[in-house]
Amino acid sequence: MPKDMMTTDTDTTIFTRRESEARSYCRGIPTVFTSASGSYMRGEDGREYIDFLAGCSSLNYGHNDPDMKAALVDHITNDGIAHGLDLHTTAKGEFLAAFEQHILKPRKMDHRVMFMGPTGANAVEAAMKMARKSTGRTNIIAFTNGFHGVTMGALAATGNGYHRGGAGMDASGVTRMPYDGYAEGLDSAALLDQMLSDASGGIDAPAAIMLETIQGEGGLNAASTEFVQKLADIAKRHGALLILDDIQAGCGRTGKFFSFEDMGVMPDLVPMAKSISGFGLPLAMVLVRPQYDIFGPAEHNGTFRGNTHAFVTARVAIGKFWSDKAFEAELAEKATLIETRLTELADMVPGAYLKGRGLMRGVDVGTGELAGAICARAFENGLIIETSGNEDQVVKVLAPLTTPVSLFNKGFDILMDAARDVLSTTKIAAE
Amino acid sequence: MPKDMMTTDTDTTIFTRRESEARSYCRGIPTVFTSASGSYMRGEDGREYIDFLAGCSSLNYGHNDPDMKAALVDHITNDGIAHGLDLHTTAKGEFLAAFEQHILKPRKMDHRVMFMGPTGANAVEAAMKMARKSTGRTNIIAFTNGFHGVTMGALAATGNGYHRGGAGMDASGVTRMPYDGYAEGLDSAALLDQMLSDASGGIDAPAAIMLETIQGEGGLNAASTEFVQKLADIAKRHGALLILDDIQAGCGRTGKFFSFEDMGVMPDLVPMAKSISGFGLPLAMVLVRPQYDIFGPAEHNGTFRGNTHAFVTARVAIGKFWSDKAFEAELAEKATLIETRLTELADMVPGAYLKGRGLMRGVDVGTGELAGAICARAFENGLIIETSGNEDQVVKVLAPLTTPVSLFNKGFDILMDAARDVLSTTKIAAE
Amino acid sequence: MPKDMMTTDTDTTIFTRRESEARSYCRGIPTVFTSASGSYMRGEDGREYIDFLAGCSSLNYGHNDPDMKAALVDHITNDGIAHGLDLHTTAKGEFLAAFEQHILKPRKMDHRVMFMGPTGANAVEAAMKMARKSTGRTNIIAFTNGFHGVTMGALAATGNGYHRGGAGMDASGVTRMPYDGYAEGLDSAALLDQMLSDASGGIDAPAAIMLETIQGEGGLNAASTEFVQKLADIAKRHGALLILDDIQAGCGRTGKFFSFEDMGVMPDLVPMAKSISGFGLPLAMVLVRPQYDIFGPAEHNGTFRGNTHAFVTARVAIGKFWSDKAFEAELAEKATLIETRLTELADMVPGAYLKGRGLMRGVDVGTGELAGAICARAFENGLIIETSGNEDQVVKVLAPLTTPVSLFNKGFDILMDAARDVLSTTKIAAE
Amino acid sequence: MPKDMMTTDTDTTIFTRRESEARSYCRGIPTVFTSASGSYMRGEDGREYIDFLAGCSSLNYGHNDPDMKAALVDHITNDGIAHGLDLHTTAKGEFLAAFEQHILKPRKMDHRVMFMGPTGANAVEAAMKMARKSTGRTNIIAFTNGFHGVTMGALAATGNGYHRGGAGMDASGVTRMPYDGYAEGLDSAALLDQMLSDASGGIDAPAAIMLETIQGEGGLNAASTEFVQKLADIAKRHGALLILDDIQAGCGRTGKFFSFEDMGVMPDLVPMAKSISGFGLPLAMVLVRPQYDIFGPAEHNGTFRGNTHAFVTARVAIGKFWSDKAFEAELAEKATLIETRLTELADMVPGAYLKGRGLMRGVDVGTGELAGAICARAFENGLIIETSGNEDQVVKVLAPLTTPVSLFNKGFDILMDAARDVLSTTKIAAE
Repeated sequence: MPKDMMTTDTDTTIFTRRESEARSYCRGIPTVFTSASGSYMRGEDGREYIDFLAGCSSLNYGHNDPDMKAALVDHITNDGIAHGLDLHTTAKGEFLAAFEQHILKPRKMDHRVMFMGPTGANAVEAAMKMARKSTGRTNIIAFTNGFHGVTMGALAATGNGYHRGGAGMDASGVTRMPYDGYAEGLDSAALLDQMLSDASGGIDAPAAIMLETIQGEGGLNAASTEFVQKLADIAKRHGALLILDDIQAGCGRTGKFFSFEDMGVMPDLVPMAKSISGFGLPLAMVLVRPQYDIFGPAEHNGTFRGNTHAFVTARVAIGKFWSDKAFEAELAEKATLIETRLTELADMVPGAYLKGRGLMRGVDVGTGELAGAICARAFENGLIIETSGNEDQVVKVLAPLTTPVSLFNKGFDILMDAARDVLSTTKIAAE
Repeated sequence: MPKDMMTTDTDTTIFTRRESEARSYCRGIPTVFTSASGSYMRGEDGREYIDFLAGCSSLNYGHNDPDMKAALVDHITNDGIAHGLDLHTTAKGEFLAAFEQHILKPRKMDHRVMFMGPTGANAVEAAMKMARKSTGRTNIIAFTNGFHGVTMGALAATGNGYHRGGAGMDASGVTRMPYDGYAEGLDSAALLDQMLSDASGGIDAPAAIMLETIQGEGGLNAASTEFVQKLADIAKRHGALLILDDIQAGCGRTGKFFSFEDMGVMPDLVPMAKSISGFGLPLAMVLVRPQYDIFGPAEHNGTFRGNTHAFVTARVAIGKFWSDKAFEAELAEKATLIETRLTELADMVPGAYLKGRGLMRGVDVGTGELAGAICARAFENGLIIETSGNEDQVVKVLAPLTTPVSLFNKGFDILMDAARDVLSTTKIAAE
Repeated sequence: MPKDMMTTDTDTTIFTRRESEARSYCRGIPTVFTSASGSYMRGEDGREYIDFLAGCSSLNYGHNDPDMKAALVDHITNDGIAHGLDLHTTAKGEFLAAFEQHILKPRKMDHRVMFMGPTGANAVEAAMKMARKSTGRTNIIAFTNGFHGVTMGALAATGNGYHRGGAGMDASGVTRMPYDGYAEGLDSAALLDQMLSDASGGIDAPAAIMLETIQGEGGLNAASTEFVQKLADIAKRHGALLILDDIQAGCGRTGKFFSFEDMGVMPDLVPMAKSISGFGLPLAMVLVRPQYDIFGPAEHNGTFRGNTHAFVTARVAIGKFWSDKAFEAELAEKATLIETRLTELADMVPGAYLKGRGLMRGVDVGTGELAGAICARAFENGLIIETSGNEDQVVKVLAPLTTPVSLFNKGFDILMDAARDVLSTTKIAAE
Repeated sequence: MPKDMMTTDTDTTIFTRRESEARSYCRGIPTVFTSASGSYMRGEDGREYIDFLAGCSSLNYGHNDPDMKAALVDHITNDGIAHGLDLHTTAKGEFLAAFEQHILKPRKMDHRVMFMGPTGANAVEAAMKMARKSTGRTNIIAFTNGFHGVTMGALAATGNGYHRGGAGMDASGVTRMPYDGYAEGLDSAALLDQMLSDASGGIDAPAAIMLETIQGEGGLNAASTEFVQKLADIAKRHGALLILDDIQAGCGRTGKFFSFEDMGVMPDLVPMAKSISGFGLPLAMVLVRPQYDIFGPAEHNGTFRGNTHAFVTARVAIGKFWSDKAFEAELAEKATLIETRLTELADMVPGAYLKGRGLMRGVDVGTGELAGAICARAFENGLIIETSGNEDQVVKVLAPLTTPVSLFNKGFDILMDAARDVLSTTKIAAE
């Protein structure tokens, strides 16, 4: 640990005194973190934690990847552009070239890349605006438990009532439909199709259908390939664009670069953010098919569109992990490991069951109280892990994809112990 | 120039092939930039440009400030946290402590700092939401030529029709009023007061009055102290919050840290972004008085809220430039220089006149055509400078505040020559 | 026929020359009507038509009922008030007394009567506003194929896309759900309950659930008692009001005064119009439980609120038809007759089936083309009858409730003949 | 007085027990009215009142005009159509012919007549929809103190905060501008023009500019010819339609049939209601230029569109009062009388001044308290008269236009006495 950081001993009253009440993760995880590498985070007190949260999937390649770090330090040391608006920069050119070569071309995607303010919500807002401007329609179909951000345009598409309530006003322009598997026996895609086809169905002709193939915040609900295909077909027949929000599920989280790769659909618009920079730096973009790339110059703008430091690390990430199939193969193995270990956990809790897909998995343990207790106990034992779902009832594993197998197992061991502890305590309390 | 970068020779077709049509600055300034320091930017071709644009005021302390650079490299080298959600980090603690000590306390501000997705628009959205949730009202008063961002909530408050058109739907929740000095003889604040006081005035009771004290994108229109004071008073009497959007005008741009410092008003909410990181890195925040800090944990959230690298540089920036009065004194002198030189320019063009305040100045030359021609010619001669205003008719100077006097003069010399060239050509063409 | 009317021979070019293109029924039924009585309408050419449309259920007691007529002529002759704003008038007092005695009290309804502009849409607007103001919520749940009017507030709740398109802008404040029996196997009430109960269901807490128990314009879809009860329960549990729009289905149309009488539910708000005046005169009102009667004086107003002439006839109608159970008994018999005869029709058309309930019945013949052809042929033979449904595929019988049995049969005979003709022609054409 | 009515003695508890709290005029004028003729209304107690309210200008030709009465009784007696949806009827044809001959043709108006639900608000809603659908734009410019109705579409254009608050949600689609003469020294039309012409003016391109030439509910503010002409010109230049809402100011109220007749403008859309039936019966319509008559059949509909009884009386009214210039000449004289007598009143109250135009006049007495007291005292002495304005500070005279000069004077005498009484009492109280 560097000398500079070791001497620091933050007076945490600064956070309660001066940081907004909106602060959140720090309430359940009150450590002051100072450094991190790979799948480990370190507190000022010198304690190390295994990170199964990974910046909510923003750190798919772990903390401070040495290659990205070297490239970034090199860039900064040599006075590389830090902020260049949307001017051409060497760093942007290199990122685009790598992204075209290793991501777009092999997947036969003719999409263009639009950069906007470096947040996922902004990518969603831009995608929604492009869909509306392209079609001349307003309505966008979104789904129960979907999470797309909390700025007013995106918030309209976010299902969570707590976040919606934060607006202090009604959000508009979105129709909500049940997600795949939402209600027993309901074919939600068929219902949507029927309502859109019905002259008195009361759903205005949509500009777009927008969904996450796996709902990260919504509780790791995974849409079936069939469902996504049906929506792609419905969108096409009803003149709507298909927006697949891959902000959380993209960049390898499901085992492939895109979450929809094996589904046989080609989305018109793909908002991306979180792990696209590879290093946890803010970067967001929308992939857009050329025919819908209809913004005029700066019609959607933002000062930090195209974060140059992030281009540097993103270019390294693309080259390092996606230039061949090795990483994908590794991910497939780890996905199996995760499934095995989480099945163990699910078996431990009556009624619990596995959620998610790929390396975006979790266990629904029934209540937010239990899930929270398990995560809290795990943290005490050195594992950072969080919940998700409409009742926070899902223990969610979003570890860096680069986490070594042994470390994965170490983390899962802590998790199992935590669950056992909590369950036995609960049992004793109940008796 | 580092070896790595020298060897690069970007194939610019990647931008036309794969970057969205929304790209903008690069159209008028087609150079591929690779490095920058202080007030200079360098192209791949080795050419240097004086930068009078400064990332639209995101680089108030110039490019790659050596002290920030050193701290950032040190942080990265030592595996300092890159992405920490909204967990406590040493870097955040140090920034908050510096911001409290050097900025908030001396100005007797009890505000808290809320971090959100690192864009100015997101800060505006958060401020609007807090105002609405705090007051239980929807309506926000915004002004002609105001620019607050292009996500749906902020866009409602943005006057520019081109940006508004990009949404493909109506934005709601905002009432537009004429800005200070908008129409000859009109006391716009008095009109607002009358309409709000009138039981049939037809303007719903507002949650907030929101404005920039100087409208950066709107053409460097500077509100008088009297106008801002009247609005503060109107807000108070009508139960509305006062939001001063200091995204572009803050961080020293007017000669003081905040643009409103000498106005005798205390805003309830202050969205900040652009130069707050000091280094051009994405960071945004809202200063909020404790009584309006009403979001619950993560009620307004975002993955990149609190960009840790940006905290590192922001802490250095605050300590270096705002721990005593030296920088302010320097800015006062430079403001005078800018005024003198721009008066020269204004005198050159019939009907032209000075706009703005402090180091956020420009000259309205009457038409966007002329302003654009002058900027284009200046760029040919090595000066990066842009226009603003509802017709792009204002030649705008947003140089790094740290630009040495001699370099300021060098830049202005290029600008004067460019204007002279363009005017003589125009004159010849007219004859 | 009076001399005055007999001499008239209207030049119908006045309609094409000066009446708006929005005119509608006159296109399919181009006769110029001059007088009417009971279940007959008469054209200027002296021809008589049996009326199975009854002003879309506005003439439940037939045309020019002699008792109402006498009372109205008496009122006018004696200079009774014609227009009295919302002043107390003898006529209003008598209507309210009769309505209390014969309608509200026997049904144990503590509702108050609110008068507004004399249109059903206005009654719906008032009900929606009261629900929103009472609950402090915006969202109102409405249903596929619902029709509640075309002014902006009501239009948001109307499912029909053609009508919605007329607004030229988006309507807001309403969430659409599938009506009872909309999709095979779908328990729509359960789905609504689940989405409202889900913290991330994405449906904002509703001010009201609003429906017609039988959708008149939507194709005579009849909700089951179970569905309406479930919605009443959902409304109660989720803090929403229950609005039963009885504009078309009320005033005896289903066999009872209210369409919901035998359902074991007590709606909070009941918009009424159409047959409430009894004579076809414009009158509209909302029944509202006292705790939701929250408008201040004239907070919802309108010049023609409380049409005095209509009070005169409405009072007679209430006394004549609803002071004992005779009329109900008569209606039960006629309902059986209608069912029998329409079953005949349904049996004639392959795939056709009966729709509706009580004396609000029809047959879905599969296509709007066929339904339209049958109605057109019937008209040629002296029967006025119309279609409804999202594709106009339902032949709809809305005869005056007072139509004598023999005349009902006469009308049905014409209808059967028309269907036979059309079907044989179609069959021939197909061969 | 007819026997039937004489014997009635209404138990007024029925109103408090069963009529909604929204009832209004009856609170200040608690008499139970039973009959009326000409400019007199009669209570059940046999007392007669001079009517200076005239159903808020719905009874411009007085109560129970003998010619209209005769025609209506004749129509009813002979089983004339009472309710005919929008079918062709003799009555409608005759009305349209008379309206074309005596109103439209002489004024060179090519407008068509659209009938809708018989309320002014519905006429306004239809006009707004036609403007939006015709232009493909949403925004409608409306004015401070404008009143256009309380259904959601119209309410957005209504300035009154009390009425707006009744909606329980935000109304949208309208931009509010100051009316003519609203703020001292302000050229409101010029301000609108500037904001619309400004690319960053922040007012979306309007579908229409909508105003009353005299604001009836807003306090009898009369727009100057110059202002209306400027708006007509602005509308034309900015691609917007001009909607002149003549619901209250039309039908002779200003001395001419339309309030805008002498202004040299030709509105695109003219909502009409109130006195168009002549007899106080509900009827509403929009005059629309053929190019904007863009609704498809029943795209905007309503059961009571085209109230047949109202057509009968309206036809008589047009023929009786508007077939030559005699009535206009009579109105000019009465307008002078009203001005003279109200000037008397204005002179009595310090600071009071005359409002309105033609026979739509009043006196602003400074406070709603004083205006209310004067009207209350006048009522005690047998004169029905009401207030208007944003603070109810205007004593408003809306007498039947047919009021004989002597009766006008008798009414004014009562008013003057009432004012004198109130002022002396107030003075005594103050001493």
